[in-house]
Amino acid sequence: MKRKELFSLKIFINDFTFTCIIGILDFERLEPQKVIVDVEIEYTFDAEFINYAQVADLIKANMKNEKFLLIEDALQHLSIQLKNKFSKINTLSLKITKPSILPDCKVSVSDITHFNS
Amino acid sequence: MKRKELFSLKIFINDFTFTCIIGILDFERLEPQKVIVDVEIEYTFDAEFINYAQVADLIKANMKNEKFLLIEDALQHLSIQLKNKFSKINTLSLKITKPSILPDCKVSVSDITHFNS
Amino acid sequence: MKRKELFSLKIFINDFTFTCIIGILDFERLEPQKVIVDVEIEYTFDAEFINYAQVADLIKANMKNEKFLLIEDALQHLSIQLKNKFSKINTLSLKITKPSILPDCKVSVSDITHFNS
Amino acid sequence: MKRKELFSLKIFINDFTFTCIIGILDFERLEPQKVIVDVEIEYTFDAEFINYAQVADLIKANMKNEKFLLIEDALQHLSIQLKNKFSKINTLSLKITKPSILPDCKVSVSDITHFNS
Repeated sequence: MKRKELFSLKIFINDFTFTCIIGILDFERLEPQKVIVDVEIEYTFDAEFINYAQVADLIKANMKNEKFLLIEDALQHLSIQLKNKFSKINTLSLKITKPSILPDCKVSVSDITHFNS
Repeated sequence: MKRKELFSLKIFINDFTFTCIIGILDFERLEPQKVIVDVEIEYTFDAEFINYAQVADLIKANMKNEKFLLIEDALQHLSIQLKNKFSKINTLSLKITKPSILPDCKVSVSDITHFNS
Repeated sequence: MKRKELFSLKIFINDFTFTCIIGILDFERLEPQKVIVDVEIEYTFDAEFINYAQVADLIKANMKNEKFLLIEDALQHLSIQLKNKFSKINTLSLKITKPSILPDCKVSVSDITHFNS
Repeated sequence: MKRKELFSLKIFINDFTFTCIIGILDFERLEPQKVIVDVEIEYTFDAEFINYAQVADLIKANMKNEKFLLIEDALQHLSIQLKNKFSKINTLSLKITKPSILPDCKVSVSDITHFNS
């Protein structure tokens, strides 16, 4: 069996934890809260690879700068920004968790986008 | 690439932990026990979103008030109540765990409902 | 929306932890070792339900009595015993983990059986 | 119901944790870093079984000796080595995690290979 020249891989960035302004409630506009982002990127590997550090940087910078009202808005925005910058992405799964917005549970919203390359 | 106007999202409420009366054994009718509820809601996002805090409230209130005999009954009841209140739900997954009913394991029952909207 | 009379459910028994004799190495025949069993049962709920306590009892008793050589043998045996006793099972997933047999990892073997009822 | 003579199983090796040289950054070529490998092997069980201890040994030895530049290279190499040594493998999933390469998250790359036996 010889080396495959093209193959489909997944990159995962899990438990990506930082604080930002997100949410529609009064106190959510004032105080940054903890969020956890999980990313799954499916792409076709050839000579080039996707730099996971740049993916993480883009997500954190956007979440901190945009101060989204809804997690739903953040998912849409990030999905477009990531595909624009990393055109090799075939499928992108994003999940954003607010671990402390409700007292007895963790709340997340996720989105999967299949791109036509 | 431009903003998508309609897209399919999932809301997760995980590790939702509280106590309630549930079960058919004598001591289960007398003493509230710890339960953990996990919810996955698939819905189509447009202008409106589903308020996760209201989803959590409905579940906890019903589990506490109804004092279900079987987890199976709780799943049926919650599934109907949630769809009635949040008509945008396309697919609903509910899992209820009794973490301390058996000594050496965690026991859960789950249900997935695909609604015709 | 009215009550569904028939619906497909899953029962989970997770992190079911006990000790038993299992394995082909000399020391494994002499000393019981810790195992973790995970079970997923898909069945159609009507008037009757599957008693999760009886499922757990059957598994533990068989694992302790049979002193299996291979996890593979345990999976085959348990799968037959469970279907014989709980005929309502449609699909059975069993996973047996030896958490301490190798120093730097957890080793598991799993099996999924789709029964023709 | 009688004993099945042939059946499809999965072997899991999870949280397999050790250190090795991996990566393209200067400090990654100098200092071994912690990696976590997760393996899922689907194979058809008959008289013979796959020895999980040998699978783990092959992975660790290759990762330590080869000092891969990219996780992507490690996945390709390991996938070929494992299939060559364990010809019964039908499907192989490998995931390699660098838990400490980025400050606020865990980064992994994974690959699934379906072999034609």
